[in-house]
Amino acid sequence: MNPLTTLPDDGRSRPRVLVRGTGLLGASIGIGLRADGHDVRLSDPSSTAQAVARDIGAGALWEDGLVDPELVVVAAPPEVTADEVAAALTRFPQALVLDVASVKDAVLRELLARADDAEEPLSREDLERYVGTHPMAGREQSGPVAARGALFTSMPWVICPAADRSTGERISSPAAVAWAEEIASRLGATVHHMDAAEHDSSVALISHLPQIAASLVASRLQDAPTTALALAGNGLRDVTRLAASDPNLWVQILAANSVPLVDVLHGLRDDVERLIRTMEAPEAPGGRADIAQLIAEGNSGRARVPGKHGAPPQSFAKLAVIVDDRPGQIAAVLDDVAAVGVNVEDMRMDHSAGHEVGMVELSVLPGRQQELADALAEMGWKVIQS
Amino acid sequence: MNPLTTLPDDGRSRPRVLVRGTGLLGASIGIGLRADGHDVRLSDPSSTAQAVARDIGAGALWEDGLVDPELVVVAAPPEVTADEVAAALTRFPQALVLDVASVKDAVLRELLARADDAEEPLSREDLERYVGTHPMAGREQSGPVAARGALFTSMPWVICPAADRSTGERISSPAAVAWAEEIASRLGATVHHMDAAEHDSSVALISHLPQIAASLVASRLQDAPTTALALAGNGLRDVTRLAASDPNLWVQILAANSVPLVDVLHGLRDDVERLIRTMEAPEAPGGRADIAQLIAEGNSGRARVPGKHGAPPQSFAKLAVIVDDRPGQIAAVLDDVAAVGVNVEDMRMDHSAGHEVGMVELSVLPGRQQELADALAEMGWKVIQS
Repeated sequence: MNPLTTLPDDGRSRPRVLVRGTGLLGASIGIGLRADGHDVRLSDPSSTAQAVARDIGAGALWEDGLVDPELVVVAAPPEVTADEVAAALTRFPQALVLDVASVKDAVLRELLARADDAEEPLSREDLERYVGTHPMAGREQSGPVAARGALFTSMPWVICPAADRSTGERISSPAAVAWAEEIASRLGATVHHMDAAEHDSSVALISHLPQIAASLVASRLQDAPTTALALAGNGLRDVTRLAASDPNLWVQILAANSVPLVDVLHGLRDDVERLIRTMEAPEAPGGRADIAQLIAEGNSGRARVPGKHGAPPQSFAKLAVIVDDRPGQIAAVLDDVAAVGVNVEDMRMDHSAGHEVGMVELSVLPGRQQELADALAEMGWKVIQS
Repeated sequence: MNPLTTLPDDGRSRPRVLVRGTGLLGASIGIGLRADGHDVRLSDPSSTAQAVARDIGAGALWEDGLVDPELVVVAAPPEVTADEVAAALTRFPQALVLDVASVKDAVLRELLARADDAEEPLSREDLERYVGTHPMAGREQSGPVAARGALFTSMPWVICPAADRSTGERISSPAAVAWAEEIASRLGATVHHMDAAEHDSSVALISHLPQIAASLVASRLQDAPTTALALAGNGLRDVTRLAASDPNLWVQILAANSVPLVDVLHGLRDDVERLIRTMEAPEAPGGRADIAQLIAEGNSGRARVPGKHGAPPQSFAKLAVIVDDRPGQIAAVLDDVAAVGVNVEDMRMDHSAGHEVGMVELSVLPGRQQELADALAEMGWKVIQS
């Protein structure tokens, strides 16, 4: 009897886990669950990928000792995820099966179609053991080498129980959903609940659109003069950071989420069109107002993006400290900050090409800013408040 | 005789400076030049703004004691910059005049038109004392309160000597150009040379397009469900950071640089159109290849964005260290890093809503990564290499 058919038991049980697919997410899950005491087995169509995952400590190879898993985590590319989930549900008729693909509705739709097809071995009852999930922990890097057990630490992990798409009736069993939440929590993530369609339209906006925008901006730099690129600052670096992402993964994600994305892209296209018309005659009546409105609407949207710990983005006060670019300087600053007893909520380095001096920008609670600035200045640091 | 009519004298001379316009840039220039030993006077059409700039140490008020400046820095909004430069050149017939507006060709065009208009007091000879410049040091914040003398430290500062727009013949005198470079260097900036048109098409691509993209993405978040925004990660935060910029400033910058920007925006619009067509039928022949090509082109462009000290963006190895969110933790990590003797080239914090544990991601030279990871692990830190 699989213990996962009952609700989690106060964190005592450590189910045997098969991780199917050992890329960045699968290997990271393996590392994290092993650290939490689970027996983790790995399996990947690529024998190289599974060997690398084993070598970095994500688990033993499944093929080296067949034990029936109690939990299967499918961490496959989006377009083969439904295949892999269906295969796991039928091959291991006791096991709970989770997937971690970045799109949820396409996977669910395909699983339901199979379950309702009498020719297929999969049944609706099998789907009671399935829960769709999405750990929001991708990186610009990919593959098992980039894996880390703490990839999910403090990141959102969305749980999307299977449900009938017309009636909305829940299919995933309560125990299966509770175990999905338990696994996400054991990996340090923050659990969020959504249905598959809500998930997909949410990520279209907050994950896929930023990826597309970063790629669109970066692609325009391909033929830019080197002299222009030499002027690049943190603004361009921030906007284009995501553009380093893996094309093979993203083509699957974007293709599988095309319906909500097309809506978002139509809105984007209309805004670009309007901006072009305005910019072609910026001195025409209303032209400047149109431009100002775009920037102001951006202000409003930006103000809604949560910062650290869900705080609004501008709730921290900032101060900058000048440092030389040599070992120990940043540590020395932060030592002194710690001595004052102020917590650093966020920090970043500010620098550009051709210089060996930098600034460390510290975000602190507004009520502590002045005290910290005064104390650091007294300790001999060059401090700039903003 | 104004010493600025001759070349800089090995950094000995400290010209008397009038800063006209005391927003973020003007006040920061005042603070920086005073720290370098200059007598700085401030003037702004807003008596509040100039009083704030004086109070934060940017200089004395011009109206409190009229001394003829040897150098005038016009730090006015882009659309009044040419007016202010012309006024300064005619009022102070010995002074060198720099402007720091983010667009250069529109300012130059207006100054040349005035110089060639017999009704105007400005002459071509006056323009020998003018140099257009652009310190690339804007921030999402604006106004004198955000000012800091070190705003320009290690940032690019573009010098665009005045030149005839048809013949290309240089108008700014060699001494004026040399002094513009000297002032930028004294403020800690890295000097770049371009003509006005090259500057404007460069910033259209590497500064104005990222601003527009950030505003476009952020504006789509205005009506997003809170549940969707709760999933936001560093990707969305990075892409939308610039969207917090000032609409009043940006409407002037974008309007004044409309010609190169319209070109860039046409390219962006065409790419969005192509993506929409592809996404409307992602399974059509060539559909997936089109999506993959967009992401791959983004990879290529991103790879050209210089990192710190002009290094390519991916030349540093990264490792992450888990820290508790309390005072002294980050300092303690960096202390130990310093003890190992490895320099931190860049760092960022990785976190999301609802958690009190974070990761500090450290970028180091690839050759030092393993040594550092091993040493930190031995010191008891939880280290993840990527």
